[in-house]
Amino acid sequence: MGVSEAVAAAHPNIALIKYWGDRDHALRIPANGSISLTLGGLKTQTRVGFDPELKQDRLTINQAPGEATARQRVTEHLDLIRVMAGIQFGAIVDSETDFPIGAGLASSAAAFAALTLAGCAAAGLELGRSELSALARRGSGSAARSIFGGFVELVAGDDDSATFAKPLATAEHWPIVDLIVLTDPMPKPISSTAGHSRAETSPLQAARVSDAPRRLQACREAVLARDFGRLAEVVEQDSDMLHAVMMTSKPALHYWQPGSLAVMAEVRTLRAQGIAACYTVDAGPNVHCLCLPETEPSLRQGLARLPFDLRILRAVPGPGAWLV
Amino acid sequence: MGVSEAVAAAHPNIALIKYWGDRDHALRIPANGSISLTLGGLKTQTRVGFDPELKQDRLTINQAPGEATARQRVTEHLDLIRVMAGIQFGAIVDSETDFPIGAGLASSAAAFAALTLAGCAAAGLELGRSELSALARRGSGSAARSIFGGFVELVAGDDDSATFAKPLATAEHWPIVDLIVLTDPMPKPISSTAGHSRAETSPLQAARVSDAPRRLQACREAVLARDFGRLAEVVEQDSDMLHAVMMTSKPALHYWQPGSLAVMAEVRTLRAQGIAACYTVDAGPNVHCLCLPETEPSLRQGLARLPFDLRILRAVPGPGAWLV
Repeated sequence: MGVSEAVAAAHPNIALIKYWGDRDHALRIPANGSISLTLGGLKTQTRVGFDPELKQDRLTINQAPGEATARQRVTEHLDLIRVMAGIQFGAIVDSETDFPIGAGLASSAAAFAALTLAGCAAAGLELGRSELSALARRGSGSAARSIFGGFVELVAGDDDSATFAKPLATAEHWPIVDLIVLTDPMPKPISSTAGHSRAETSPLQAARVSDAPRRLQACREAVLARDFGRLAEVVEQDSDMLHAVMMTSKPALHYWQPGSLAVMAEVRTLRAQGIAACYTVDAGPNVHCLCLPETEPSLRQGLARLPFDLRILRAVPGPGAWLV
Repeated sequence: MGVSEAVAAAHPNIALIKYWGDRDHALRIPANGSISLTLGGLKTQTRVGFDPELKQDRLTINQAPGEATARQRVTEHLDLIRVMAGIQFGAIVDSETDFPIGAGLASSAAAFAALTLAGCAAAGLELGRSELSALARRGSGSAARSIFGGFVELVAGDDDSATFAKPLATAEHWPIVDLIVLTDPMPKPISSTAGHSRAETSPLQAARVSDAPRRLQACREAVLARDFGRLAEVVEQDSDMLHAVMMTSKPALHYWQPGSLAVMAEVRTLRAQGIAACYTVDAGPNVHCLCLPETEPSLRQGLARLPFDLRILRAVPGPGAWLV
């Protein structure tokens, strides 16, 4: 077998109902289900080339050599693919991402979805989308969702093979706009992977997890009915519950910045004025402000009024991971 | 019986372990116990004069006529005293407070502690401190604690008469300094009384309450051992748990302002550098920054660096309510 290579691309996603904490940390089986929107507009593209000449994997991220922790995580993920494909040599992995990495923008979701799809294609493995999703999950829990487009649900299954994402509604179903407000483009101090393992130290985590079916159901219904008001209520509550658990973990994790709080307050003020807008914040300081195409101008005006230096990225529902 | 009057004063207090939500809302029997520090440096002084000529109570607050809701709350509280004393006429109540009212600085705690003590004295009732504390609680849950000085615990009893505060350690036991950072001196949008009734709508409240005995025990031990590091950890976690419940209530209550968050982050940064400091935030945007006399200069320097317009009040452990 000579060099076999493939290129795949994937969008990150924003969780509307968030997963935090693992039932099985090694296998990344989440403590609760989650629902997300795949974010067209932001993209990671990854080339994987297996090469019998290579004893070790080689990784570049945005044309720079990957750091040791990233290299190890990629190698462990490729090992899963190598075992399935019976490959015993290394790969060259080149990944390019067009949005800030490690800043709470789910860069690992896009990265591991693209790596999974490209890696399997390069290895000659023909997997269905559910299998690709379960495999992507092993690299990054939220990557399982980026395999699919539009609105996606990741079910918290009982074991590895039962824990994969599935489509809830297509990208065309509801043209939600996500204005991603970057309040702090620096890499975050604690990675999501490290954070997940702290979830159980919060006295609030069990309550958050046991309440998850209610939130998932409310979100599902709101998405399917295109009911923005209902979506807003459950999405903001779910986000605040995530941060409640993180803040009360031991040691505590505080991701919100003053600018994040100002954006959140402005979004609530706008919604109280009848403007369809809501916020959700992942494990980072950036605030995802969801709105509808017709309320985007009002939301942008409100954000522009804030006395903080904010940069805004824009995303709309996008497709699942694809081979390039 | 002619005019009978008395003057009493009381300090507010800052809860180190906070009470939020009632087991019995009408009787203000709290859902969980609490521990506080009585704040010498801030004061409410109240004159109560019962007068057979009066059919209705008359109230002034800082020399201005009290508003209808304040008048009603004072009258309901005096009614309890009138029933106990067999009085059937009104009172003149003049209250003066030397710190911002209704801004999350526990003004109602000082107000109802002073009102209870002055009202009982004016009515000729001779109650013990425990009875005064239980009675003050009916006016404002946290007022039960301001009857006592220093470090105080309010036990969540099974009924009215069993729910009163008791001293945990004297004001002289540990010279904690409280720098109260006013990030927003405006009256808060939702009173604590209204907020308490929302506690049960948060999916996190039950977990907060059931975890309270652990936090109370940790706080008790830290206070008695004068262990600032241990105190800091449980006090900040307890404060964040309170705000977690408030933020996830329905409708949600968001008290933190961007400036609050900046102060909280600065305090954590200072503590990570070895400076004894921690924060706690009541139902308002102001941040109580606790420190020791020797770390007060470092804390003040850190706060002065923040790009927010902050006003600082200073408090130290003070005595319980007293007759003037």
